[in-house]
Amino acid sequence: MPDTPIHLLQAFERLRETWSPRVVAQMNDVCFKIARLQGEFTWHRHEDTDEAFLVLEGSLRIELRGSHVELAAGELFVVPKGVEHRPVARAECKVLLVEPQGVVNTGGAGGEQTAPVDKWL
Amino acid sequence: MPDTPIHLLQAFERLRETWSPRVVAQMNDVCFKIARLQGEFTWHRHEDTDEAFLVLEGSLRIELRGSHVELAAGELFVVPKGVEHRPVARAECKVLLVEPQGVVNTGGAGGEQTAPVDKWL
Repeated sequence: MPDTPIHLLQAFERLRETWSPRVVAQMNDVCFKIARLQGEFTWHRHEDTDEAFLVLEGSLRIELRGSHVELAAGELFVVPKGVEHRPVARAECKVLLVEPQGVVNTGGAGGEQTAPVDKWL
Repeated sequence: MPDTPIHLLQAFERLRETWSPRVVAQMNDVCFKIARLQGEFTWHRHEDTDEAFLVLEGSLRIELRGSHVELAAGELFVVPKGVEHRPVARAECKVLLVEPQGVVNTGGAGGEQTAPVDKWL
């Protein structure tokens, strides 16, 4: 665990890949992960957990079956457990994810966008 | 639970009190709380949980016994479980707290700065 504060946007200087979340801090069993998003992610769900998205820079659309939400920078949204969703970022977007340890980014969907689990920056 | 994104800084328009965290979202048993901090808080610790601070506006000093950290806007810090700490904000500071449900803001210390637990905005 870092014993100094982490500047979230500056931390992106060490993360160039998109769709590849990196843990920057942990609170109990909950991970704070930064991620660059660009383009369309795969439809997926997390059967066992909610998942929080905080947009740090840019904007993000989270498609839900039959609806969607649009997040601007500074906005927080929680995708409830079991709800199928697909993040879509027209331009590159920087987000903070907050979710328990062990969450696979693609949920049960798998595929080439699946990233290593709980990889620290 | 909100089914629309919440703009964290705009949410402060509905919170005028200092040292009085308000829940704005929840992920599983973890609460996201906004709080205005100004002045010195009471020394306290949380015996059962870590506590995350993300500074949204202003700056925050978190004193720890024998050390301290200084957080600027955009910086995240996790106070580990059991570690005595005291937030100090020379000027008003807006923060996002991330911690499990049921956390008392003054930990076991009590006193007049104790706020209602898990009160929603």
